[in-house]
Amino acid sequence: MNVTQRLEVMFDELWPIGRSITGSGYRQSLDILSSVMPTDRLVFKTGLKVFDWLIPKEWIVRDAYLIDPNGKKRAEYKVNNLHLIGYSVPFSGRMGLAQLRPQIHSLPGQPDAIPYLTTYYRENWGFCMSDRELQSLPEGEYQVCIDTELVDGHLEIGEAVIKGKSDREVLFSTYLCHPSMANNELSGPLLASFLYERISEMRNLHYTYRFVVQPETIGSIAYLSKRGDWLKEKLDAGFVITCVGDAGLFTYKSSRRGNALCDRVAKLILRDIGEHRLEAFAPFGSDERQYCSPGFNLPVGSLMRTMYGRFPEYHTSLDDKLFISFDAMTKALEAYLKIVSALEGNWVWKTNFPFCEPQLGKRGLYPTLGAQKQRERKVEALMWILNLADGKSDLLEIAERSGCEVEMLISVASEAEVAGLISKI
Amino acid sequence: MNVTQRLEVMFDELWPIGRSITGSGYRQSLDILSSVMPTDRLVFKTGLKVFDWLIPKEWIVRDAYLIDPNGKKRAEYKVNNLHLIGYSVPFSGRMGLAQLRPQIHSLPGQPDAIPYLTTYYRENWGFCMSDRELQSLPEGEYQVCIDTELVDGHLEIGEAVIKGKSDREVLFSTYLCHPSMANNELSGPLLASFLYERISEMRNLHYTYRFVVQPETIGSIAYLSKRGDWLKEKLDAGFVITCVGDAGLFTYKSSRRGNALCDRVAKLILRDIGEHRLEAFAPFGSDERQYCSPGFNLPVGSLMRTMYGRFPEYHTSLDDKLFISFDAMTKALEAYLKIVSALEGNWVWKTNFPFCEPQLGKRGLYPTLGAQKQRERKVEALMWILNLADGKSDLLEIAERSGCEVEMLISVASEAEVAGLISKI
Amino acid sequence: MNVTQRLEVMFDELWPIGRSITGSGYRQSLDILSSVMPTDRLVFKTGLKVFDWLIPKEWIVRDAYLIDPNGKKRAEYKVNNLHLIGYSVPFSGRMGLAQLRPQIHSLPGQPDAIPYLTTYYRENWGFCMSDRELQSLPEGEYQVCIDTELVDGHLEIGEAVIKGKSDREVLFSTYLCHPSMANNELSGPLLASFLYERISEMRNLHYTYRFVVQPETIGSIAYLSKRGDWLKEKLDAGFVITCVGDAGLFTYKSSRRGNALCDRVAKLILRDIGEHRLEAFAPFGSDERQYCSPGFNLPVGSLMRTMYGRFPEYHTSLDDKLFISFDAMTKALEAYLKIVSALEGNWVWKTNFPFCEPQLGKRGLYPTLGAQKQRERKVEALMWILNLADGKSDLLEIAERSGCEVEMLISVASEAEVAGLISKI
Repeated sequence: MNVTQRLEVMFDELWPIGRSITGSGYRQSLDILSSVMPTDRLVFKTGLKVFDWLIPKEWIVRDAYLIDPNGKKRAEYKVNNLHLIGYSVPFSGRMGLAQLRPQIHSLPGQPDAIPYLTTYYRENWGFCMSDRELQSLPEGEYQVCIDTELVDGHLEIGEAVIKGKSDREVLFSTYLCHPSMANNELSGPLLASFLYERISEMRNLHYTYRFVVQPETIGSIAYLSKRGDWLKEKLDAGFVITCVGDAGLFTYKSSRRGNALCDRVAKLILRDIGEHRLEAFAPFGSDERQYCSPGFNLPVGSLMRTMYGRFPEYHTSLDDKLFISFDAMTKALEAYLKIVSALEGNWVWKTNFPFCEPQLGKRGLYPTLGAQKQRERKVEALMWILNLADGKSDLLEIAERSGCEVEMLISVASEAEVAGLISKI
Repeated sequence: MNVTQRLEVMFDELWPIGRSITGSGYRQSLDILSSVMPTDRLVFKTGLKVFDWLIPKEWIVRDAYLIDPNGKKRAEYKVNNLHLIGYSVPFSGRMGLAQLRPQIHSLPGQPDAIPYLTTYYRENWGFCMSDRELQSLPEGEYQVCIDTELVDGHLEIGEAVIKGKSDREVLFSTYLCHPSMANNELSGPLLASFLYERISEMRNLHYTYRFVVQPETIGSIAYLSKRGDWLKEKLDAGFVITCVGDAGLFTYKSSRRGNALCDRVAKLILRDIGEHRLEAFAPFGSDERQYCSPGFNLPVGSLMRTMYGRFPEYHTSLDDKLFISFDAMTKALEAYLKIVSALEGNWVWKTNFPFCEPQLGKRGLYPTLGAQKQRERKVEALMWILNLADGKSDLLEIAERSGCEVEMLISVASEAEVAGLISKI
Repeated sequence: MNVTQRLEVMFDELWPIGRSITGSGYRQSLDILSSVMPTDRLVFKTGLKVFDWLIPKEWIVRDAYLIDPNGKKRAEYKVNNLHLIGYSVPFSGRMGLAQLRPQIHSLPGQPDAIPYLTTYYRENWGFCMSDRELQSLPEGEYQVCIDTELVDGHLEIGEAVIKGKSDREVLFSTYLCHPSMANNELSGPLLASFLYERISEMRNLHYTYRFVVQPETIGSIAYLSKRGDWLKEKLDAGFVITCVGDAGLFTYKSSRRGNALCDRVAKLILRDIGEHRLEAFAPFGSDERQYCSPGFNLPVGSLMRTMYGRFPEYHTSLDDKLFISFDAMTKALEAYLKIVSALEGNWVWKTNFPFCEPQLGKRGLYPTLGAQKQRERKVEALMWILNLADGKSDLLEIAERSGCEVEMLISVASEAEVAGLISKI
């Protein structure tokens, strides 16, 4: 099976599981991902203080549904796990529709979509259903069954590190707490896992690569309470992987710093790939909110396809397998691999011939038939490298200034080193 | 009466007075303004050297007109004070039209407009009339009567200061030397006076506010000869108030520095208001020429509606009450008040939770029903503040980067302080 | 004769000569130019190492042609010196068309153009002809005659220096190695020669002006081996003069530094002239490749009309007298002279009246009839100078910020100095 097919197989396995920020569904999902990306587990006990937050109780769902006056089951959790508001407390009782109505949520503007809602930090319960179903509910008495439990337990984070020669680090962070939604979120942990697999096959890595799979927000806060100081010292570039499964244009959201290494490399790779969107940093969104909080201010951006909140299927039951494409996800994986290659090849070069050009012709690197009207792009890339290899600019700066593709520059720089024209700093 | 009505009443009172850079009309106008903005008077004697200039003599006008060969009075000062060139020396005599002609000025491109001209610094005399009238003058002998006098006296400047807790200052400067013209210039001193009234009603002001009403150019030169060193040390932001009565878009002309506090705050307030124009600094225009001379280089810009020189009525008899709108003037007053609020609220904030976000939900500052598709703008403003309150950026920087309205940021920052999330530096 | 006519006369004299990077044609051309710009000759022996390069042998061409199976002479050097690839080694023999074919070069996309090719640094031979002729060559046996010789000799560079009061230098560099081509290249040395003549007639020059005429690439490398250290210390601005004869828009290609004095002055002069093109530095092109190699990084740009490579006639027989215009070349000469004037007038001025404006009226520099609706551009220029003459900004900065023409600013600054308003730093 190729990667595209393997992504789909693993997607199908993960899809039906009822995940939340804690609990067995979350753990089971982490185990499935571990077949490709084996992760260590960081464990945080219920009630532990992490910065301004407390690790919540674990949430157990056994069953949840409504029975309408005609005896018909409605909003059944086992049919679609979006029907139950995440972290709903247990409840059992009978009530009229008017009384029940405020506990049921829908999206009038998207009448066929079941919205996704949670109530992690306030004891509450409720159901979500399509507005079409909500409008059609018969009057009368309803039976409400929410067979859930909130228990002391723990929150888990999966972590995997691939050691390179340097202790400078690159972070790939993704989250795994949403129930059955495809682009936001299964695409993230799926891509991260196969990215891990590919990087772990590479030899002679310069950077150390750190992968984190966690529940959104509370996960990254807990993670930073343990690894924040380390990352502040060691992290050169980081990326939140999310929304990488739809067929839209690539979007890069910058880190708070705006021109950190993560930002420079992602913008160049997207430039080389073609049409794309750039988003300035904003303190909304996903775990970059925590990574980029002012005390950490880590160099963490996010390379997505269509950004969260920008596609109508976002946070609804319409964000399903039909909405995404495993080809698109594979192409996003390739984009992330290009970023890795660019980071690995981002040396600071110094020309060995600073005064006038070296004679390329006698080294077989320049056409011997002079004055030709066309130049090869490869020769152009070499001339840019020789001109800009000042011992201070890194290769990404050469790519920025020259407009040459990063990939071409890395390969030409390597040839130029073999030819004795330039040296690594 | 509301402010709009009061502006009109005072306008009607000021309109007919024959003002110049000195003299009784100027003083009378200053007295009228003092009913709303009581000013101290700075007095400069005729002949006093102020930098490279000399305070001129006072100009007294008793009467001025022509009598045409048919005995008809023409260009009578008492009918329209623009008919007489400002500072015309006394003259009485008879002459043919050919001889008189060079002393009469008109605007052939605006045949119904009487132009506004002055001859402050060279002894000369002349009349202005509409080109239509000029073209219709009969041949023959004219009687010229200019009953004026130039006497030793003094030049006066009105000054009012509202003390705040800090000795850092904000300057509002306007000029009062033009005869009957409405947008340029009565709108300026009118707005300044009511701005003074409004600020003087405010409690707990941080900044000290300084208001200056003076004859243009020679006034600001004289003023700077007295207060220049003080302003150089104390001034944080200043504005020349002029051309604020027409219905055109707001225009902000930057200070010479280009990114001083006056520039930043005015640009943000206009951004929040909506469509507007920005003008780079140029050493032409009004008293900003003196405030922004290189030795002072004060942070003084100018918030106008349509800029001087950009409307055809400028410096002609067409700049009259019909041309302006007291509603527009009131809206301009409100824009200046927004600037004051923004300056007063421009604290440097520091988050008390630099590492990861504080948990807003438990403080009632975040919706407890998570994952909703829409976010309130107020919550966004709070998240921006928490992310950017680094103890170095002022609130205007947060407004610049976030795109949030200054007014909203100030109010949300205040709530966040009460909630213990951020502190003033 | 005016300059335009003299340019044409000299062009006609230079046109037929078979030039290369060495040899008698090159020397003869340098001698012709010396009638207007007398140059010293820097001489480099064959085999001498200059940085990474060796000075090549001299190339002597006595005759070269093909004889086709019908006895017709083809690709005869004496008819068009582009027919023979530059630096072709001697060859004499007979061969079939199939065997000869790879040695003949044409441009299928431009069927009537003979391409220009060289083989300086690899022993080889070949012919160039129009694709139309190539396609019409009859099958059969061809006689090949290349009566050339490669001998030990030397490479020559012409150099002329006009001493100014300062030892800070301005460089004009051009190249003279192409056979009969008009825009690229005779326009360059022609313009340079007459520019030399004009500058040498000027009195009280501030800058020292250095002119260099050399074979492209190897010439500038040899030149820099001798003068590189000196130029690194003394050069303030330099220009490669090439492609200045066509009727296209002016184009300025920046130096590697991007905002050096050469770049600032050229951009301003082109702004004042009108529509034009700006090109960022790229390490392709002409001798700026060597001047801007990272070890030298000299402030050298290039003011052209249509840039090399951007016109279809480039490096073909179509780049001939019909393609260029001596009027256009004269206008380019004038643009270069404007650059010289701007450099000579680029003083740092300091106002003698830093506090408020000096009173211009009493000095006859301002209209005494005040409040007029129109201002003269000259008065505006004076007000800009007074406002920006801070003793730090040079005149070009004042031109950049004010938008006033450099020429006007220089002349107004000079008047202002006479009036005692400003002083040179």
